[in-house]
Amino acid sequence: MQALFFDNRLSLQDIPVPEPSRGEVLIKLLYSAICNTDLEIIKGYMGFKGVLGHEFVGRVITESHPLYGKTVVGEINCSCQQCYLCLSGRRTHCEHRSVIGIAGRQGAFADFISLPAENLHIVPDAIPLPLAVFTEPLAAAVEIFEQLHMKPSGSVFIFGAGKLGLLVSMVARLHGFDYTTFDAVTEKTAFAFKLGINSRTIRELSQHEKAEVCIDCTGSPAGISLAMSHLWPKGTLVLKTTVADPAKPDLNSIVINEFTVIGSRCGLFSPALNLLERRLVDPSTMISGKFMFMDIINAFEAAKNPLNHKIIIDHNV
Amino acid sequence: MQALFFDNRLSLQDIPVPEPSRGEVLIKLLYSAICNTDLEIIKGYMGFKGVLGHEFVGRVITESHPLYGKTVVGEINCSCQQCYLCLSGRRTHCEHRSVIGIAGRQGAFADFISLPAENLHIVPDAIPLPLAVFTEPLAAAVEIFEQLHMKPSGSVFIFGAGKLGLLVSMVARLHGFDYTTFDAVTEKTAFAFKLGINSRTIRELSQHEKAEVCIDCTGSPAGISLAMSHLWPKGTLVLKTTVADPAKPDLNSIVINEFTVIGSRCGLFSPALNLLERRLVDPSTMISGKFMFMDIINAFEAAKNPLNHKIIIDHNV
Repeated sequence: MQALFFDNRLSLQDIPVPEPSRGEVLIKLLYSAICNTDLEIIKGYMGFKGVLGHEFVGRVITESHPLYGKTVVGEINCSCQQCYLCLSGRRTHCEHRSVIGIAGRQGAFADFISLPAENLHIVPDAIPLPLAVFTEPLAAAVEIFEQLHMKPSGSVFIFGAGKLGLLVSMVARLHGFDYTTFDAVTEKTAFAFKLGINSRTIRELSQHEKAEVCIDCTGSPAGISLAMSHLWPKGTLVLKTTVADPAKPDLNSIVINEFTVIGSRCGLFSPALNLLERRLVDPSTMISGKFMFMDIINAFEAAKNPLNHKIIIDHNV
Repeated sequence: MQALFFDNRLSLQDIPVPEPSRGEVLIKLLYSAICNTDLEIIKGYMGFKGVLGHEFVGRVITESHPLYGKTVVGEINCSCQQCYLCLSGRRTHCEHRSVIGIAGRQGAFADFISLPAENLHIVPDAIPLPLAVFTEPLAAAVEIFEQLHMKPSGSVFIFGAGKLGLLVSMVARLHGFDYTTFDAVTEKTAFAFKLGINSRTIRELSQHEKAEVCIDCTGSPAGISLAMSHLWPKGTLVLKTTVADPAKPDLNSIVINEFTVIGSRCGLFSPALNLLERRLVDPSTMISGKFMFMDIINAFEAAKNPLNHKIIIDHNV
């Protein structure tokens, strides 16, 4: 089969179709999408070498399995279910985990992928297939609400109107609290505004404006300092992005202001699928381009353009 | 009156007795103590210049006030009670606050101090006078329990068996959870052990041992990285110390492990006074030396010795 391999450089390679291990099923890829994490990996983040890709929708082709023929999306952390972290409800942090296309496991930029059946969720019929690739990043946005009680009376600043920032904003908008999404780039705040998101450019943010919760989706070291400077004392800063060259914030500011800083990573698929199925979150206008899988190298070039949003890969042949 | 003035160097100076503003009372100092924050200030932290000292017990000498003649301790943050932070229950973070001996207000290393009456707490008779100076640092230890729900089934590592680490450990010991206090210096863990604290040296900590809550009281940039490496994913790191040269932790680790990092500063005096009055926390053996106020410059030299614990200043004449 064809697969996009990363080993210091990206190349399409012909590799064997994976053989499902015990508990796994084989999936034919239908659509996938490029995430900022993919762009960070090719800059060196995680030191991963192998087949990239972790946002996807596919069809189960293992005939012997009850999921045969179903359209599925897959949670990206594959866990042992036996260690302390698995047994204490933290399977996404399993000490022996592999992560699809990120750590120790082949990704979804390929014709086929083999995954543990327990990671899969059937995609409701009401969700158009290309939109199902948003399940994984939308789950990551919903994870903030899983970790943090955001009061209806509160105030929230979201920094960064990129792909993740827009999804976080679309979820934030469903709640009663005041929120504003900031970006340095006017085109991005204008795009967010068209999606119905309350957005402003960072230039319009005066130094005295503060929120009880600041969410950093900038993926930029400078973004975190900015977010911290607009947080009320005893407020919560949510860190959403991992980058190859991470920021190092001033700890004295955290202690003096008694900030809470919460790292936030992958989320649960069920609430994300619910929001997509109910059309409460409609990311369709976030698709900036579609490329056939054989053209995925060019798709990566398009994804690097910061004004582009989601680049979708069409695996149908 | 005599006062210990800091202006790039420490000197005893003769300055006027302060005149109480509206709402303030004049206090004759009885005992005070040197805190690590004082040692950081003379290294440049906060850029403070003026009379140092914020841990004290004294007697109210303003005859017209109902507190006249009472023995009192004082919360160190003086707030406006009118700003958003004061009105939302965050008076210690008041935007217009001054902080005794730390920011914009004369400290307690003097014959007299003037303070808002609302900051004062009467010291119960059962607390020996020199021990009352521990109210402020003990309140800072109790603040962790005010901010964070530490479950009886949990596990807690405390890093640093200095003054604050010992007080945090003494409070931790009152709860049902497993806790261990670590320090690199054998003399310090041995001293903690004599106080009944479950303590080990950092050499004895294997890299696989982890806790659900790690509390950094090391006051050292390296301590924070160490604490983070012994924290379970989704665990909570409490930062307790401010230093002139702050550490800059790896943010990727916070995001990937979904750590919560909580900055923790000053606490409430009432629960601290309760613990001292009930003798549930007895810091008397933590007093490493007593100096007369006129000898305070030498007291600072003694306080700089990391093997010394609390250095007490006797203001009685």
